[in-house]
Amino acid sequence: MNQSQYPSSLLQKAVTEISRLPGIGSKTALRLALHMLRQDVVEIDALADSIKDLRHNVGYCKVCHNISDTDICDICANISRDKATVCVVENVRDVMAIEGTLQYRGVYHVLGGVISPMDGIGPADLQIDSLVERVKQGDIGEVILALSPTMEGDTTNFYIYRKLQDTGVTVTVIARGVAQNDELQYTDEVTLGRALAGRVPFKS
Amino acid sequence: MNQSQYPSSLLQKAVTEISRLPGIGSKTALRLALHMLRQDVVEIDALADSIKDLRHNVGYCKVCHNISDTDICDICANISRDKATVCVVENVRDVMAIEGTLQYRGVYHVLGGVISPMDGIGPADLQIDSLVERVKQGDIGEVILALSPTMEGDTTNFYIYRKLQDTGVTVTVIARGVAQNDELQYTDEVTLGRALAGRVPFKS
Repeated sequence: MNQSQYPSSLLQKAVTEISRLPGIGSKTALRLALHMLRQDVVEIDALADSIKDLRHNVGYCKVCHNISDTDICDICANISRDKATVCVVENVRDVMAIEGTLQYRGVYHVLGGVISPMDGIGPADLQIDSLVERVKQGDIGEVILALSPTMEGDTTNFYIYRKLQDTGVTVTVIARGVAQNDELQYTDEVTLGRALAGRVPFKS
Repeated sequence: MNQSQYPSSLLQKAVTEISRLPGIGSKTALRLALHMLRQDVVEIDALADSIKDLRHNVGYCKVCHNISDTDICDICANISRDKATVCVVENVRDVMAIEGTLQYRGVYHVLGGVISPMDGIGPADLQIDSLVERVKQGDIGEVILALSPTMEGDTTNFYIYRKLQDTGVTVTVIARGVAQNDELQYTDEVTLGRALAGRVPFKS
């Protein structure tokens, strides 16, 4: 018996399963499993049931494909939101981040990822066709591309732009530049170069 | 809706439950929950079931109180282990750590914690009476105290020593000193002081 052998097969099984989660190694998994052993049965059942329930019963909004308990999500169903402006994002976390700014009153379109040939993700794996379909219905005036500023994000931006080119919709992309409170000397050259090239008139 | 509000109550519930685990905040919990959504149902069921199974069905060795699937754990049942030497540890992780050294051929006694008035843990909450009982049965020659070198560990060591004083058993405590590969200049004064006081003849 060495340190990687567990005194109980139930413990070993739980540690193996927990350590499959991203960012959780076998030491953390063991710590979590031993913690669970010290908790009330009711609490651990609630944890396990909530995980199963999430995986089995979560739904997606039929309009924007965001995670939702209802057919149409709260944002799409909100009559005070501007339905003519659609912000294209990668996933639900990006929706939550933009909602967190309290600056955006339009609606979303959640792609479910970005085009990434390295990971075997092509346009057909994403909600791009449904975006084009939404735009073709004619009520949308502006599509804001808010994907991550990575090569994959740029590729996806370009692909969507080409797809929407003939629909007459305005396609914009979120501004890139130096981040608030970043120190200029530590900003990478590409970001700094784009920030210079994309300079705007000073407003006081 | 701000960043702490989730688009789905199922997601919110899962995130709440996951973030109850020690060392996992709501951001990590959200990341884990969204990861789970992308996995096969079978895999997530296996994870949830292994957690439930662990909590509901794990057992403890009747002799040493270590976690075990059987009434008597593998170590206590192993005829080649020295049953006359009992190493007293706090929990199963300490057993695994000592087994990892491959240096110890005796058996264990798992207390399930240390005396800690701050956390409301007294001697009655630990497997101390059962240790005294084990020693009184007469087949044990040495009890090795291998608790953490903390105030709580020292208190527990002292309590156990007093309890075993009249049984005639030899009570030893694991050596304290500077750790292998630690730099002397960064070693704390208490450790260094004890290492000096506990110096032993040099053997080449």
